[in-house]
Amino acid sequence: MEAFDLYILGCGSALPTSLHFPTSQVLNVREKLFMIDCGEGAQLQFRKAKLKFSRLNTIFISHFHGDHFFGLFGLVSSLGLLGRTADLHIYMPLGMEEHMKNAMDAFCFGLPFEIAYHSVDPTKMDVVYEDRTMTVETIPLKHRIPCCGYLFREKPGLRHIVRDMCDAYNVPLSMYGRLKNGEDFVTDDGEVVPNSRLTGPAAPVRSYAYCSDTTYLHENVSQLKGVDLLFHEATFGNDAVKRARETYHTTAAEAATMARDAQVKKLMIGHYSARYTDVRVLLDEAKEVFPNTVLANEGLVYRI
Amino acid sequence: MEAFDLYILGCGSALPTSLHFPTSQVLNVREKLFMIDCGEGAQLQFRKAKLKFSRLNTIFISHFHGDHFFGLFGLVSSLGLLGRTADLHIYMPLGMEEHMKNAMDAFCFGLPFEIAYHSVDPTKMDVVYEDRTMTVETIPLKHRIPCCGYLFREKPGLRHIVRDMCDAYNVPLSMYGRLKNGEDFVTDDGEVVPNSRLTGPAAPVRSYAYCSDTTYLHENVSQLKGVDLLFHEATFGNDAVKRARETYHTTAAEAATMARDAQVKKLMIGHYSARYTDVRVLLDEAKEVFPNTVLANEGLVYRI
Repeated sequence: MEAFDLYILGCGSALPTSLHFPTSQVLNVREKLFMIDCGEGAQLQFRKAKLKFSRLNTIFISHFHGDHFFGLFGLVSSLGLLGRTADLHIYMPLGMEEHMKNAMDAFCFGLPFEIAYHSVDPTKMDVVYEDRTMTVETIPLKHRIPCCGYLFREKPGLRHIVRDMCDAYNVPLSMYGRLKNGEDFVTDDGEVVPNSRLTGPAAPVRSYAYCSDTTYLHENVSQLKGVDLLFHEATFGNDAVKRARETYHTTAAEAATMARDAQVKKLMIGHYSARYTDVRVLLDEAKEVFPNTVLANEGLVYRI
Repeated sequence: MEAFDLYILGCGSALPTSLHFPTSQVLNVREKLFMIDCGEGAQLQFRKAKLKFSRLNTIFISHFHGDHFFGLFGLVSSLGLLGRTADLHIYMPLGMEEHMKNAMDAFCFGLPFEIAYHSVDPTKMDVVYEDRTMTVETIPLKHRIPCCGYLFREKPGLRHIVRDMCDAYNVPLSMYGRLKNGEDFVTDDGEVVPNSRLTGPAAPVRSYAYCSDTTYLHENVSQLKGVDLLFHEATFGNDAVKRARETYHTTAAEAATMARDAQVKKLMIGHYSARYTDVRVLLDEAKEVFPNTVLANEGLVYRI
């Protein structure tokens, strides 16, 4: 199966700790790398994960709190020093394009490549990126400033040829493309061989949803329905429900409620408040609601 | 002896490696913390070194290449989240104040403290900071963009009271301040007791010079004369003299030549190019010229 792997570069929150980097992730979809948020130090963690800068063309920013984008300047500078020429695409909530351009012009001047900024409307669900194999939709979130998550979905693939059966019916190679697309085969004698005898089902489509930062938003259940992996922020535990409300963050139990109600296959929690030196308390609280929960951690690679 | 300690937070150069953070240092002068350059991740390293954010009031930036200042945004944001109210002073080469203000306004809005920007002329030697115990002078450097180093010098301290001798001459406590300043003591009988009998010499003044990034500049020898510790960039080794020239950097042997000719007490080299996975080759080349050389490394604390 081709890669659909999530790399956790950082899963802390705004205040630095000696345990966590601020938020950044990379999704490897068939060797194309998509960065999701780019907190300070993301490029260092990217390098540590032995990922290839040349395979990174697209970055999705959830919102403009520093712990989610201050790594952009260093990353962009380094891409310039590495001699990159391909465009770099940055998706981000509306309203900050001018500021980003000004800062990049002042601090990363003379880049040998172009940055294409794509402003997205964080208040609505929308397909903002599409390529041959995948789409990315915005997930409306509710934080102290405009913010959205991103949902990565593979497109349905082609059916797999069952070689032995095709040989038995003398199917010419030139027909394989049509078989993969579901056509039946008609023999020289006029016999119709149903597609299901000659092909197997396509690989299941995989999906990954990223939700950070946000207050608990029950209405997102329908969009997140059945995703393979949901990353949901769980900044706080049950000890700090009030603080979670005040700061527009989610508790571990709420993240798990979302996972349960959306019937996702697995939940990963992260964006831990600096107050938790041992985040297993957050895991325990989440597992009470949704047992199939794991903790994000720097260096973790999760194959979806 | 009161602290005059150098903390290395990062000693890599522009390209990220899995070995080094970009440049940042902290000088602890009697529990006041002075940051020198602030590469990406400086706040994370600051926290790891268990330094106190509340004791940091002054930052000196050598130049505006990203590996020397991209950590400022995250650090400033965190100081805001920590509820800082005291002014933060940032010294930096002329010409970037407007850009820095714009970026801080856009990305670190709503700070509960003021940032005071102090633009310095990087082309001349000048005392740009002074307090009760210390001065900081600019060191003109020559890089691809305006750049200066900084020289931290303690002011001469007071002489130490020799308690036993003072007691023997019945010197009243009220005289101690004047003795510390070098006055002689006159007994009730009119006998003049020379100050040198009642006091010992003041602690020697300590000094630290930071030179990064720069091509080798022999004319700086006189300003650096006799400093206790010289940090000098040594981005390259003898294998890359041409590259050092082209990029306005220094080789390890050149840094050592500076240390030798300026008769400094100790040399620390750093700002290693990403090409060196083992920097002992740089140390060896420096030691051939100036044996009392050490390598900078993340986590190192050097008591001057």
